[in-house]
Amino acid sequence: MNAIIISIGTELTTGQCLDTNAHWLSERLTDLGLRILSHITVSDDVTQIAESFQRAMTEANIVITTGGLGPTPDDLSREALAIALKEPLEIDDLAFKQLESFFIRLQRPMPDSNLCQAKRPKNCEIIPNPRGTAPGIVHSSQSGHFFLLPGVPSEMKAMYEQSIEPLVRKLSDGARTIKSRLLVYGMSEARIGDTLGNLMEPGRNPSVGTSAADGVISIRIVARGKNDADAQILLKNDVSEVKTRLGKAVFGEDEDSLASVVGQMLLERGLTVATAESCTGGSVAKRLTDVPGSSGYFKEGFILYHNSTKTARLGVPDDLIERDGAVSESVARAMAEGCREVSGCDISISTTGIAGPGGGQPPDKPVGLVYVGLAREGTTDVRRLVLGDHLTREEVRDRSCKAVLNMLRLWLIESR
Amino acid sequence: MNAIIISIGTELTTGQCLDTNAHWLSERLTDLGLRILSHITVSDDVTQIAESFQRAMTEANIVITTGGLGPTPDDLSREALAIALKEPLEIDDLAFKQLESFFIRLQRPMPDSNLCQAKRPKNCEIIPNPRGTAPGIVHSSQSGHFFLLPGVPSEMKAMYEQSIEPLVRKLSDGARTIKSRLLVYGMSEARIGDTLGNLMEPGRNPSVGTSAADGVISIRIVARGKNDADAQILLKNDVSEVKTRLGKAVFGEDEDSLASVVGQMLLERGLTVATAESCTGGSVAKRLTDVPGSSGYFKEGFILYHNSTKTARLGVPDDLIERDGAVSESVARAMAEGCREVSGCDISISTTGIAGPGGGQPPDKPVGLVYVGLAREGTTDVRRLVLGDHLTREEVRDRSCKAVLNMLRLWLIESR
Repeated sequence: MNAIIISIGTELTTGQCLDTNAHWLSERLTDLGLRILSHITVSDDVTQIAESFQRAMTEANIVITTGGLGPTPDDLSREALAIALKEPLEIDDLAFKQLESFFIRLQRPMPDSNLCQAKRPKNCEIIPNPRGTAPGIVHSSQSGHFFLLPGVPSEMKAMYEQSIEPLVRKLSDGARTIKSRLLVYGMSEARIGDTLGNLMEPGRNPSVGTSAADGVISIRIVARGKNDADAQILLKNDVSEVKTRLGKAVFGEDEDSLASVVGQMLLERGLTVATAESCTGGSVAKRLTDVPGSSGYFKEGFILYHNSTKTARLGVPDDLIERDGAVSESVARAMAEGCREVSGCDISISTTGIAGPGGGQPPDKPVGLVYVGLAREGTTDVRRLVLGDHLTREEVRDRSCKAVLNMLRLWLIESR
Repeated sequence: MNAIIISIGTELTTGQCLDTNAHWLSERLTDLGLRILSHITVSDDVTQIAESFQRAMTEANIVITTGGLGPTPDDLSREALAIALKEPLEIDDLAFKQLESFFIRLQRPMPDSNLCQAKRPKNCEIIPNPRGTAPGIVHSSQSGHFFLLPGVPSEMKAMYEQSIEPLVRKLSDGARTIKSRLLVYGMSEARIGDTLGNLMEPGRNPSVGTSAADGVISIRIVARGKNDADAQILLKNDVSEVKTRLGKAVFGEDEDSLASVVGQMLLERGLTVATAESCTGGSVAKRLTDVPGSSGYFKEGFILYHNSTKTARLGVPDDLIERDGAVSESVARAMAEGCREVSGCDISISTTGIAGPGGGQPPDKPVGLVYVGLAREGTTDVRRLVLGDHLTREEVRDRSCKAVLNMLRLWLIESR
């Protein structure tokens, strides 16, 4: 079974808005085993929309369109479908009642302009919109199904899940596609490819693919089975195999972050943490406290931008800063140890480096040189990161945060 | 003059990757006065790609495609163009030399698989790629121009700017479209609409539109003129009129942020700042230090997550915390004043609140209740924010940062 996705709106063709609907729908339909033939984006021009509708009807079993169902004169999807089907537009009683009750719930009178939203071409049906005034429209024939959805992503997604996915699932051959995403840090995409080897062969089921963003590699595993149980077994086996091959480099799944994973481990172990940041300027603490419930392990943080504050707050000797420079192994160590002592926390983290774009002194201290420290009872480790001066300031700070959070993660695993 | 944009790749039609190239190109071409007829996305299927090429050639003056120019077997744009034009593929001498020299610069041998990247259909020309191995291809005829660009955004953008934009600018009728974006904080989109009134009328030149994201309203002003000077005058007049009508609510333009604007003012005035954060957990300091050169005014920051640290670091009386609670006007005030005294900075900022999702005690202290403080010589102001428990933790923290940075911005303007 195949599908075409059509996005409608001049705000899309002029580049004012980025279309994310086609991407979202593609992922969902692909997961159901459909082949997506194309995405088409057209402006608010009724002739052009109608032509794209007619062409898509002849090419695909399933067509889903988004946009052009609002109440204003530039919302033309209803008219275009009527033209494409050569059917007149008529008021749908159910849609009219739903529109009425929507405005009654809001305790507002229904503007006349909304009335057009109750219209649909003859021989079509209405798709209810639980979140807004624009109902969808569906036209079904022997050759396939044609769905009109609104462009507002939250409404579109709710209507897809409620009314379209169940139907498409029934139409597809009963096969089931499910997926999982594993998150990896500290291993290159090439090395992951070598390690996973045969699992990534084209055409294999489950399919295993990688993509990299901001230093984190995502591994996408998609399993197809005759039914749900079958697909679950395939997926579970592959997830477990990938985890075995990549070991500790796998830090989480789906929406996990290094900070959320570290937070969970700190909470379970009853350990507390404090931060002493220079070049990251509060980013490490921000990430730790992005996690709900982080007050259970995060106690306090110091941001020590001027050198004098490193001495005043954490007792970093000023002759050490004088001798080795603020960006040095010894200062990262003294910051971590000072922070642990002052805060009374079990663990402390430190960062000091040159985020750029200015301030580099090559060759010894180029932009992208960062030291990150981790102090706990009895030991302090410091890592020297050479991130490279091709990275932006934002990237240097991001990679530094990830490196020190991963250092903490690995220590939490090893000391278990 | 009109254009069609074609994006090529199975990673796009399966929803693995979000296409941002079509959006970027649309905005640039629209700015040159072109009408974008459609975006088409197709998978790595040579027949389908060739068909979409042929159709686009007959419909538009300018066609730009992205993707499918890599060295692997699923990169099929070159072959598809050859099919569409009914011309054979041949090696381009210039492209071959550029490929060779690219690998010489990297001090690596050129893999055989890269050789195909030097090919182009007969009667086409090569577009140099300053950033990678995939050269582009252009086919020009009386009916128009057909451009093949790689899918990697950084390469695609560099090649568009270097080789395509100058040509399209020459081809367009000399009319010029230029634009500006003003950023507004602290005024609702509806009130901005009322205030700008006639400027926003449809069909007016310049066109003025608003969009809202994360509490910041962007005002987009697009001016069309017979030539550059003409457009510049129209744009300048509107920018100045919008600024006059909205006053201090306009905080910046284009890539400015509240933190970068505040930073610039602090630098000009020679003032220093320190932060004392509870619920924002380092986010305010992070934003201030996101700005290159922020060490010129940002000295240090405290993150005081546990109540005991508010007392230990900044001398907030513990009976005050006991009496009014950590989330209170008096504690925000004491944090700001303590931070200013301890840091010795001219200005200090404080935040304390309930970011959620847990920890709310309605009705007095619901999730989304935040106090932000600003201390400077002689005065401390505290604002109570009721952000609402419909916001996520991330949104509560984001809005709190913006509110306190804007408070500082307004004071810097008023005290000038």
